[in-house]
Amino acid sequence: MKIAIIGAGAIGLSFAAIWTKSDQEITLFCRDESRANLLAKEGIILTRQHETNIIKVKTTANIQYLSEHDLIVPAVKAYDLESVLRAIKNHLNAKARVVLIQNGLEILKLASKYINSSRLIRAILTFGAYLESYNKVNILSAGEILLYTPLKDSLFMDILNAFKSTDFTIREIKDLKELEWFKTIVNSAINPLSAIVERENGFLIENSLLKEIFIKVADESTKVAKKLGITFHEDPVHAAMDVARKTANNYSSMLQDIRKGKKTEIDFINGKIIEYGKQIGVNVDLNKMLYAIIKAKEQSK
Amino acid sequence: MKIAIIGAGAIGLSFAAIWTKSDQEITLFCRDESRANLLAKEGIILTRQHETNIIKVKTTANIQYLSEHDLIVPAVKAYDLESVLRAIKNHLNAKARVVLIQNGLEILKLASKYINSSRLIRAILTFGAYLESYNKVNILSAGEILLYTPLKDSLFMDILNAFKSTDFTIREIKDLKELEWFKTIVNSAINPLSAIVERENGFLIENSLLKEIFIKVADESTKVAKKLGITFHEDPVHAAMDVARKTANNYSSMLQDIRKGKKTEIDFINGKIIEYGKQIGVNVDLNKMLYAIIKAKEQSK
Repeated sequence: MKIAIIGAGAIGLSFAAIWTKSDQEITLFCRDESRANLLAKEGIILTRQHETNIIKVKTTANIQYLSEHDLIVPAVKAYDLESVLRAIKNHLNAKARVVLIQNGLEILKLASKYINSSRLIRAILTFGAYLESYNKVNILSAGEILLYTPLKDSLFMDILNAFKSTDFTIREIKDLKELEWFKTIVNSAINPLSAIVERENGFLIENSLLKEIFIKVADESTKVAKKLGITFHEDPVHAAMDVARKTANNYSSMLQDIRKGKKTEIDFINGKIIEYGKQIGVNVDLNKMLYAIIKAKEQSK
Repeated sequence: MKIAIIGAGAIGLSFAAIWTKSDQEITLFCRDESRANLLAKEGIILTRQHETNIIKVKTTANIQYLSEHDLIVPAVKAYDLESVLRAIKNHLNAKARVVLIQNGLEILKLASKYINSSRLIRAILTFGAYLESYNKVNILSAGEILLYTPLKDSLFMDILNAFKSTDFTIREIKDLKELEWFKTIVNSAINPLSAIVERENGFLIENSLLKEIFIKVADESTKVAKKLGITFHEDPVHAAMDVARKTANNYSSMLQDIRKGKKTEIDFINGKIIEYGKQIGVNVDLNKMLYAIIKAKEQSK
């Protein structure tokens, strides 16, 4: 399968390296030619489960080549997705599918403004990756990839197989809303709190004061989802603690962003929860406090 | 009047310099002899309202000399007050009064474990001071000193006059609870929020997201006080915004403490509000979140 990965961040490099290693035909699309050339020359240094490999990947900065690909993976942050889709939509071949791997709520809705929704696949990633330098990436935890599609045809089955070749656990899901909310609730507690106290995920539940607040945030977010009619097969509050425990030594993506002085994805996580909370009359004050503090930190860097 | 000031921090140096300048007989008690000697030799460099003076002060590290003083001012943080009172209580002369200038609630109650309450005076300071180096202090804003005494005798009148010689506006108060709560509510919003976003006080009310949260915190704290039966002659929430506006360029004492890797006074501010909130059944989740984050920051430095 010909797969185009757009963006050379932690997630883009991870997929490019893993898929190249498992013999998929990968092209990594970079922002500019000098970065594309450098990455092609030096390769990607991928560390995963204590094993480090240098993997040579095919790169380009020319979006004309997108039309040759069956699967497009915009590996960019949620807040950059819209501008990327706007830039690429006229360069895709008519059949190509676009996989949306961004964190947060309403990613499919946002993307369907640019790409027909039958061609969109939603992926929820439950692993972390950390970019050590421009070509050096560490995959921080084992994890699952959950896939949702509105159009289950033979191309989607090929895409499913391509994902299975990554060695991640791959699960096709029918209940997108539940799982998107589930992940977003977990993120709504872990990401901003870890970014504010500037500590690893595990610290949030080892420290008894923070743990109480952590639970209260996840609970507040869950109340919004439940009032929206979403039912959960697993308690999101327990799941949030479970994720914090399993990723105890990881630094969340939001903390990484704050440390780098970058914008965070909080608009698509706590920001969306606050929007819904206001609409349906659920108190979201704790989410609001986290949101206001993270926005202040973004602004102050 | 013979006044002993204990502690050479921002507030201790400010009082020592101002009172020495206005011809009170001041002794500044330092933690050790080398600091006492250095301060005696170099003097205090005090900046107040765009005027800088070098003021020579009398210093010592020997608490035996405390017995010669009529007024004792432990110029230490709330969390150090107890150990200081324990150390000095047997060195005071029988008539001496002790002025408590610490931030927070229940300072008088704490001090009365060591000193008979008829000898205690409670002072509420509404000015800020910033220690630039060991002997260099800036008074950041004009402000008031509010004084409360259970025993209004001629010695108290002398003490009142000594305070009046500082050029601060001095006001004697009878309603201690209202004013202690009033100041604590203001601090419960300004101090932790400014310390968390690491910005000057004014930023908290210029930024519309933070302003909403700032108001919610002050409001939550006010609800606790009101449920305890405290009535306010002025709305504490408006007052908090007013203080943030008037001290827009100041860095709060809590932010200064966090930056220096020091312990903060949060136990006596938001910590006390949380205690009362739990006792009387008022939701204090926002105070809890601020408390948990500040405690995590103290721990991580």
